[in-house]
Amino acid sequence: MATQPILLTEAEIALLSKEVGRSSLMGKTIATNQKDVDAFMQLPIDIPGHGEAGGYEHNRHKQNYTYMNLAGRLFLITKEQKYADWVIEVLEQYADKYLTFDFHVQKNTNPTGRLFHQILNEHCWLFYTSLAYSCVASQMSEAQQQRIQERIFEPMLEMFTVKYAHDFDRIHNHGIWAVAAVGICGLAVGKREYLEMSVYGLDRNDTGGFLAQISQLFAPSGYYMEGPYYHRYAIRPTCVFAEVLHRHMPEVDIYNYKNGVIGNTVQALLSTAYPNGEFPALNDASRTMGITDMGVQVAVSVYSKHYGLDDNLLGMAKIQDAVWMHPCGLALSQAFEQATADREIGMPFWPSVELNEGPTGESGAQGFIRMQDKNQDVFQLVMNYGQHGMGHGNFDTLGITYFNRGQEVLREYGFGRWVNVEPKFGGRYLDENKTYARQTIAHNMVTIDQTCQNYFDVERADSVHGIPHFFKVDSDSIKGMSAFANDHYDGFEMQRSVFMVNIDGLEAPLLLDLYRLNGEGEHQYDYSHQYEGQIIRTNFDYTTHTELDTFGDKDGYQHLWRVADGKVDGTALVSWLQNNTYYTWLGTSSNDNGEVIFTRTGANDPSFNLRSEPAFTLRSNGGNTLFASVLETHGYFNEEFEQSVTARGQVKNIEVIGHNNLGSVVEITTASQVVTVMISNQQSATDTTEHELEFNGQQYSWSGFYALSSRPVA
Amino acid sequence: MATQPILLTEAEIALLSKEVGRSSLMGKTIATNQKDVDAFMQLPIDIPGHGEAGGYEHNRHKQNYTYMNLAGRLFLITKEQKYADWVIEVLEQYADKYLTFDFHVQKNTNPTGRLFHQILNEHCWLFYTSLAYSCVASQMSEAQQQRIQERIFEPMLEMFTVKYAHDFDRIHNHGIWAVAAVGICGLAVGKREYLEMSVYGLDRNDTGGFLAQISQLFAPSGYYMEGPYYHRYAIRPTCVFAEVLHRHMPEVDIYNYKNGVIGNTVQALLSTAYPNGEFPALNDASRTMGITDMGVQVAVSVYSKHYGLDDNLLGMAKIQDAVWMHPCGLALSQAFEQATADREIGMPFWPSVELNEGPTGESGAQGFIRMQDKNQDVFQLVMNYGQHGMGHGNFDTLGITYFNRGQEVLREYGFGRWVNVEPKFGGRYLDENKTYARQTIAHNMVTIDQTCQNYFDVERADSVHGIPHFFKVDSDSIKGMSAFANDHYDGFEMQRSVFMVNIDGLEAPLLLDLYRLNGEGEHQYDYSHQYEGQIIRTNFDYTTHTELDTFGDKDGYQHLWRVADGKVDGTALVSWLQNNTYYTWLGTSSNDNGEVIFTRTGANDPSFNLRSEPAFTLRSNGGNTLFASVLETHGYFNEEFEQSVTARGQVKNIEVIGHNNLGSVVEITTASQVVTVMISNQQSATDTTEHELEFNGQQYSWSGFYALSSRPVA
Repeated sequence: MATQPILLTEAEIALLSKEVGRSSLMGKTIATNQKDVDAFMQLPIDIPGHGEAGGYEHNRHKQNYTYMNLAGRLFLITKEQKYADWVIEVLEQYADKYLTFDFHVQKNTNPTGRLFHQILNEHCWLFYTSLAYSCVASQMSEAQQQRIQERIFEPMLEMFTVKYAHDFDRIHNHGIWAVAAVGICGLAVGKREYLEMSVYGLDRNDTGGFLAQISQLFAPSGYYMEGPYYHRYAIRPTCVFAEVLHRHMPEVDIYNYKNGVIGNTVQALLSTAYPNGEFPALNDASRTMGITDMGVQVAVSVYSKHYGLDDNLLGMAKIQDAVWMHPCGLALSQAFEQATADREIGMPFWPSVELNEGPTGESGAQGFIRMQDKNQDVFQLVMNYGQHGMGHGNFDTLGITYFNRGQEVLREYGFGRWVNVEPKFGGRYLDENKTYARQTIAHNMVTIDQTCQNYFDVERADSVHGIPHFFKVDSDSIKGMSAFANDHYDGFEMQRSVFMVNIDGLEAPLLLDLYRLNGEGEHQYDYSHQYEGQIIRTNFDYTTHTELDTFGDKDGYQHLWRVADGKVDGTALVSWLQNNTYYTWLGTSSNDNGEVIFTRTGANDPSFNLRSEPAFTLRSNGGNTLFASVLETHGYFNEEFEQSVTARGQVKNIEVIGHNNLGSVVEITTASQVVTVMISNQQSATDTTEHELEFNGQQYSWSGFYALSSRPVA
Repeated sequence: MATQPILLTEAEIALLSKEVGRSSLMGKTIATNQKDVDAFMQLPIDIPGHGEAGGYEHNRHKQNYTYMNLAGRLFLITKEQKYADWVIEVLEQYADKYLTFDFHVQKNTNPTGRLFHQILNEHCWLFYTSLAYSCVASQMSEAQQQRIQERIFEPMLEMFTVKYAHDFDRIHNHGIWAVAAVGICGLAVGKREYLEMSVYGLDRNDTGGFLAQISQLFAPSGYYMEGPYYHRYAIRPTCVFAEVLHRHMPEVDIYNYKNGVIGNTVQALLSTAYPNGEFPALNDASRTMGITDMGVQVAVSVYSKHYGLDDNLLGMAKIQDAVWMHPCGLALSQAFEQATADREIGMPFWPSVELNEGPTGESGAQGFIRMQDKNQDVFQLVMNYGQHGMGHGNFDTLGITYFNRGQEVLREYGFGRWVNVEPKFGGRYLDENKTYARQTIAHNMVTIDQTCQNYFDVERADSVHGIPHFFKVDSDSIKGMSAFANDHYDGFEMQRSVFMVNIDGLEAPLLLDLYRLNGEGEHQYDYSHQYEGQIIRTNFDYTTHTELDTFGDKDGYQHLWRVADGKVDGTALVSWLQNNTYYTWLGTSSNDNGEVIFTRTGANDPSFNLRSEPAFTLRSNGGNTLFASVLETHGYFNEEFEQSVTARGQVKNIEVIGHNNLGSVVEITTASQVVTVMISNQQSATDTTEHELEFNGQQYSWSGFYALSSRPVA
């Protein structure tokens, strides 16, 4: 039997062909792909030998499979023979050389391939190349097909399922690439046993294979514990292989498998994205990966076809400005075309969502709260109160990031890595990933006694998780979430409650943050804020140092220059300008001493691996404490047009009235009113729990998790 | 006689009205203006009292005149009465209040107005408001007109021409605003004597007035000595007032006045812009001001109408995506519409140009060289070898900036100022403008003995200028310029020669820089490079300091942290990544000792007024010396798509073979060839001067200013 295209039928090809030259998303996708492939085909074919990770050879093999994958489909869709001829020629040259390459020398724990320094990349190669082969096999003689199979595909199948059998059945995002590659190649070469192996595992005992992977990798919410960056990497083989099974193993009913785990996990991934389409860098991750990634394009197309469409998905497609070059993508393209004929498709505005973690959803969660201001600008607040994210996990929980006006405001540093930049250690993770990027001081939270949460101990971190307290997003005037982390510092209970609040007189939602720490004895607390931009003003005097020393000597502090500091009485105000927007932060603690320290990354960075970024930290010393702060978003600055409006904010003060094991009370003062916020600190609280507290002779009572009241300024 | 619109006839208004709702540049301009004005008209009218520079009151008066100016014309063009009614209401309220405001308290040398802290802004107010008034006066009763004239316009005219008469006749960019405002207002209130005063000066003796201004402010090349940022500020009243005279004083024949000085200076301004439309920050200036500024929009429209059009002007209009809402803009809009029906209008690619300085063009020049790579990306090299730029002048000459791939690579810091940011000293110039931004160490050049050129002495700086040596841009394979600065450091002659060279095997033009210093005795030379981005690699070991000290204690050095340093033997290599592009710099000096120091701005900056930016400096000590460097542009990095290609450059070495008073010889080695570059150091050289030099027993001979030869690598 001649090999047929694995993912396309004749009828589907005919429909795709009709999109050539059109201005639809599919038409644009085909045109872009043609332009890219045509440009690459201009270069002489090259099948290089071994090279550095991230170096020319690595990139070239990656480009070869990427463009073979596109060219295979372009041949079918455009009917241009040149695409088939080119794929076949590249395959022939791989067949000449593949077995002449020895395995790479192993440099870390990853097993090596003949083309790449780790088999993960070789899985990718097989995955894409098998699909390409299936598109052009009809143009090859029997002997040609035979030669490709014998000299490339079969040795690879043998390597992945025999030589590296132990890795094949591992439940891990890399494992999905392995099984998808092997399964697809099995179909391409007519050896269905490999498809079976890929789906059910080598031993067919639920410990390996695609079905076990997708059953066990994701939480009930669909969240993937390594975070969106790694999730996005796994989503492509997940969706492509699901589509393969949909067509070639219908008995699995893959899209309904385990209550639609495929759709569920795609939805979870998409719902983490910032309004501009970038993913928050939860765990050590890239700061710039987003929904325009090809894997996410495939996922949105697959989801649209098999799980249904709404305006948020159409908004995603609008940002992507492309679809998967496949019937799934065609369905999305057609829906988009129809929708835009009727109405304007705006940017997506995903609902707020709490994504639980762990196999049963009981290992904490990741919270994503969104609110719009009067101009429909989406504000997003992210808090991590889940579990340690495997090999890529940061060691802390209760960190937040905050996004509005098209930019991350309270920022995550992201990983210490320059991906694919060969002179930077082959693009691999750098030492500073551990010594800075994964440390608590880098993550917009409170560091106790200058040590990292979980003491940077993987085993300890794996054994604990955050405890959700509440996640309330029904009101338009206030949305908030709260969680406990009682096992992350020895002898400490911590609770963080974060809100976005609409207050009369403010132009935008106000971020309110209450961070409570409860332990024995006196300690040092560093409440850090990773911002970007230019300091505009403060309400306290500070000294900029004429010589710089580091902020500390370990746990990330050794990478921070201590640039300036100042004592604060009462509430500290720090205001800065980030691109076009002013931000004013007011923060205080219930301890009566305070100091704000301005820092900048870059110390003890012998190879300039870190980016130079500023932060400020409110430090206080003492016993149990409650930090409270607000962050106001205000005004507008445009350097090019030399415009500046509302450079000063409206909030005058935030004050801790009191806190104990029952609740916390703070007051926010604006020009016109005083807003009192009361929050439950009881882990056992419910929506109806009654709270009665007295601070300074004043009674505070409310029922449920929190309450607000306001009065005019006296 | 009822006041008529000063800049529009009935017939012209009818033509503009036809553009409403169209997708032409004019149609888009009208729509954008309507949207902006409509939004502003939603706010309650407010005529505030005195406030801070850059504060709410300042901004509000500015917005009031900006939107009155637009609304006046929109009334005529759209026939919507609401625009006239609104302008009239605002004018009435100004009439109520203007004379009740006292003059501002004077805080610096600028005289103050009743609305603004300096009369410059009050000139602007009168300029725009008079134009607006002329558009809506037909809708006002005689009594209303009388009241506006008596309570606003006449007191202002009196203030500008009597109270502040000494300032009215000053030849300065602010003076153009003064005369244009007074002249236009004179027309609006039917007092032509004010127009006469504005054109010919108070004393009609060529020392004041618009004609004297435009005769004396610009060099023969059209260059304005304060640089493009200030030029762009003056160009709007220049062009608008020229158009007024064209219509109301045709006897002046303004567009042909002094051989077309108006057109000449517009052309000069536009020809300085970087390929992305931003102006190089020559002298202390904003880094983000560009051709989308409204003043430049007016200038491009006026130029198009009166001096003719080409594809570069159409390319400018494409970047601006708007035109002046005036018949001049309509002409441009129509030309653009016609052109784009035929063909794609690309980004502008201005020819290389040398703009002379000084009243007779003999005070040096500013050089702008442009070259395209294979992908039509425009590379631009700018060298300042002109004169001190008045109040905004930096103190040095021979500084360069370099732009490609859409970004400034060797960067100018720009001014130390946060324009209109009220909490930053009212948006005014900050101390750091003098102590850092205007110092030699900040300007990509060689600082001798850690002192600023001209010792930061204005009088001294005013008395000297650069001496052009050559400016050769005819060849496609090499373009270069060279100049001397022999009076800027006591006892020193300096010569800088910079080239862009196409060399086989390189993907982009190579920047070659030779900086020669000739003086008595031993000195310290700091050859500094203001870059941006992430250091990727070096070819020498360096030490990053665990405590930071400043680079020095004065002349800008006190603002630089000394981050790291390393000794270099021979040629130093520093490679960095700026956004998507890799840059590799190789530099050396003829002295046999060298050290590279990595620095970062931010030291001794007590109010966080400076931006944190990196630089590196090649330091050598000794007698006369020649610094030689190349800067290679290569590769591509995309973090979002995790692509990296050609992270290492092709150039292997640059070496100084020798230099003396006749010439300099350097060799550049790539993977495949050795390129020898020979440059004349004789100030008296011509295109035919013969040079014969011997270094290390090798003869070098060429005729003219420079020569290249190449041979294969041995």
